[in-house]
Amino acid sequence: MTGWLAIAGLGPGDEALITPEVTLALDRATDLIGYAPYVRRVGGRAGLVRHETDNREELDRARHALALATAGRRVVVVSSGDPGVFAMASAVFEAVESGPAHWRALEIRVLPGVTAMLAAAARAGAPLGHDFCAINLSDNLKPWDLIARRLRLAAEADFAMALYNPRSASRPDGFARTLNLLREVCAPDRLIVFARAVSTPEERIRVVELRDATPEMADMRTVVLIGSSATRLIARDGAPYVFTPRSVPA
Amino acid sequence: MTGWLAIAGLGPGDEALITPEVTLALDRATDLIGYAPYVRRVGGRAGLVRHETDNREELDRARHALALATAGRRVVVVSSGDPGVFAMASAVFEAVESGPAHWRALEIRVLPGVTAMLAAAARAGAPLGHDFCAINLSDNLKPWDLIARRLRLAAEADFAMALYNPRSASRPDGFARTLNLLREVCAPDRLIVFARAVSTPEERIRVVELRDATPEMADMRTVVLIGSSATRLIARDGAPYVFTPRSVPA
Repeated sequence: MTGWLAIAGLGPGDEALITPEVTLALDRATDLIGYAPYVRRVGGRAGLVRHETDNREELDRARHALALATAGRRVVVVSSGDPGVFAMASAVFEAVESGPAHWRALEIRVLPGVTAMLAAAARAGAPLGHDFCAINLSDNLKPWDLIARRLRLAAEADFAMALYNPRSASRPDGFARTLNLLREVCAPDRLIVFARAVSTPEERIRVVELRDATPEMADMRTVVLIGSSATRLIARDGAPYVFTPRSVPA
Repeated sequence: MTGWLAIAGLGPGDEALITPEVTLALDRATDLIGYAPYVRRVGGRAGLVRHETDNREELDRARHALALATAGRRVVVVSSGDPGVFAMASAVFEAVESGPAHWRALEIRVLPGVTAMLAAAARAGAPLGHDFCAINLSDNLKPWDLIARRLRLAAEADFAMALYNPRSASRPDGFARTLNLLREVCAPDRLIVFARAVSTPEERIRVVELRDATPEMADMRTVVLIGSSATRLIARDGAPYVFTPRSVPA
């Protein structure tokens, strides 16, 4: 049996957002590896071995997956969303770079998925309909100063922004600092979308202006979308639409 | 019959990258509307009316779709990639904003998809594995000065970048200016991925350093990924892997 490794994106939660390409890889796999809540999203079957790991063990998990594929197993590393956006694909290539030379000869495929910011934007309307950026607010793997610098330059560039991992129990303060920083650069009526657990039963979408945003509106299951200065709201019965127009007048 | 409007992303080209949610909407539609090459990607069937339009008519197309849904039709507006990224979702909401009040009462859903930059990144490895931005290089709808300003600030922020619509017959010079601007801010060994027609039979992935990049490497079917200063290449037999590590040392 020739082993292979696929790094697959399961999308934001709803099975209807998993691509057929990913479903096929899951059907052919002998081994699933990933953060336990993601592995549990995939149905079990006879012969499928499940390796559930903790959240902070990405590099060990990647090496384990590479070793299994080398041994001839058909391995799928699962991520939520898209595996290339703040997820497992980078960890696997970091492991390949520092690992034995024969890992470079393995068949490694990255299978894209619907990343959280695009699912969140779709629910709110089209807030990322013009130029935008994606910033991971976790300072576990980078200094806070770099995050602050990127936020400031992104606001100066008038990008819409998608903020991943805004807040967790171990990082309660970063998002409060983010809001303070945005208030220095953006007008108080800047639109913000808090999108929690999109496409799951716990989904909640909240739209506020920057002046009314508070840190408690985000948690570890939330992606936060910050509009550009051009982002507008359409009021209606029911949830409003938030969108960024395609054109910027000269 | 109660009409509805869905704005659906068909992904980059391969049918295996279309979500089941989108497939279900296409199966239930009475009318398909979109740029002709995207409408033609969807198989016909009895009772399905196809409205193929030219590329520059987004707002007219959106109004047509809204009028059909108001009349009780089940309408799917198709985009390639994700409809919220430089595609039809913003145009529909622009039309709603300036249209009759009853359009706000319609059921409008945006169905996310795999956008070109994520499919391209997956093919190359994980070049967007850390903070990144997406910039549309077309100056049809915004002034070139704004594009240049965003490129410069994005490079200063050390974002990886995805550049959409880098070059077309009517805009032959913008991408040359983009490369010149990047050469002012980035080192000559900055990695660039030219990803053309990803997931189609015409797919071509080319990885070069900034010093060797030329405008002719991009066309209207190409998305261009610019690495951050941390993006690295893993050489191997066959196509190299390009990835941006998850961590930035303090």
